[in-house]
Formats: sequence, structure tokens, C-alpha cells
Amino acid sequence: MQSEATVKQADEQAIREMVDTWLEASKRGDMTTLLKLLADDVLFIVPGKEPFGKEAFAAANQQQMKDTKMETAIDIKEIEVIGEWAWMRSFLKVTFTRSQEEPMKLSGHILTILHKNHDGRWVIKRDANFVAPETP
Amino acid sequence: MQSEATVKQADEQAIREMVDTWLEASKRGDMTTLLKLLADDVLFIVPGKEPFGKEAFAAANQQQMKDTKMETAIDIKEIEVIGEWAWMRSFLKVTFTRSQEEPMKLSGHILTILHKNHDGRWVIKRDANFVAPETP
Repeated sequence: MQSEATVKQADEQAIREMVDTWLEASKRGDMTTLLKLLADDVLFIVPGKEPFGKEAFAAANQQQMKDTKMETAIDIKEIEVIGEWAWMRSFLKVTFTRSQEEPMKLSGHILTILHKNHDGRWVIKRDANFVAPETP
Repeated sequence: MQSEATVKQADEQAIREMVDTWLEASKRGDMTTLLKLLADDVLFIVPGKEPFGKEAFAAANQQQMKDTKMETAIDIKEIEVIGEWAWMRSFLKVTFTRSQEEPMKLSGHILTILHKNHDGRWVIKRDANFVAPETP
């Protein structure tokens, strides 16, 4: 049997890999993969609008991903695993580039609640997301 | 021995009482009580600035509380207790009134991570706080 610390470490590693998968899928515009990384009842909490779920996320991003090149860099500040739950604090930088347009730079802090599904996959449950256009 | 469900329920109740204590202390301008409800390494994550801790919270609020009347209403949307950890999603409305001035209304969603100290008291560990001036 694995020790509690070993399980925690493996879970933390699985979450880091899930974040990589998320960012790679975002760059590719691979909505199918992105949606698999979200809990069915996920909520995104962002400034200036009501929290929104999976469908609204898909609708908003499918549009944005068209003809847009995306570069990302994430700095995971901390991950705390508690059994089948975890929380993570991170800082994300995103640059969107559309052909013929100036690149748009966004950045911000994120506080994420994650949950481990019965099949062992970690998914995003709540995402308090302060990513916003950088002010010059 | 208490069942797991009973402990969870008691913890949820303790967190609700802690939120009431927080709001009452905010109204009174009682910084001593507020600081006791924060983990030593608490971080507030808010739009447009770097996450800040206990000292910065005290400095910012001590100033604001002077000569200001404060009314609050909180709607706790969900609380999930996981052992000595918990997360909570809420919506807060605040009205600040300074003598001779128009009341200032703020509101916003909050995602909070809480931790139960060794002495059994729940404290705020991380607070992703979208409370901002209401736009007319």
C-alpha cells in the first residue's frame, strides 16, 4: 500500500499534467479535450459577469479560438491535495494573435478547485479567474 | 463517536457562524476579531493588484473603516467541507456610507478556501474576491 505522502505527490503530479493538457488543448483549439477536463457542474467565476458553466465556456471559446494563435505561460504557485479534492493557485499569461492584428496580452491570478473523478481523472470544479487584458 | 455526516454538518454550521462573526466585526470596525479569522499566511486575490496578506489587509481596512458606516448582505451559495479544509462560494453586497456623502454600493462573487486550526476554529486561507463598485 502506498503512503499518504506518495499518493499526495502522485495526485499533485497528475494535476500538473492536467494543467499542461489544458494549455496544449487550448492552443490547438481542441474543445473536446478541454470539456473532458471540466466537471459537469463546473463554474467559472470572473470579473463583471455572473458565474458560468460548461456550455457557456464552450460557446465563448469556440468563437474565440477561430483564426487565433494562442501562447500561454502558467506559473503554478501552490497545489494542496486533500483526498479527492484539491485547490491550486496560479498565475497565467496569455497572448492572442490574429492575423493582421496586434497581439493581445492578458494575465492574471487564478484560484482553482479540482476534484478527482471516480475514474481517477482530475477535473476543474470551480475556477476563480482574474485573467484580464494587461494595461500598458 | 459522531458520524462523518454529523461532523460535516457541524463544520458547515461553524463556517456559517464564522461568516456572521466576520460581517459583524466588519460593521463594528473590530480589526482584532477580523484578524483572528484569518490564517497567518492568508492571501486575498482581487482584480488588478497582486495577492496580499494579513498586514496589507489590516492597513487597507483600518483606513477605510474610519467614519464609515457599513451594511452587508451575504448569500452563501455552497459550502464543501473536506476534513480540516473547506471551500465556499458566496455573493456579497456591501454599502459604505460616509457622513455627508452618497452611499457607495459594491457587490461581487467570492470563492474562499477555509482551514480548521488545531484549536477547532475555522479561518480564511485564500479569498478570491470579485467584490467591486456596482456599475449603474
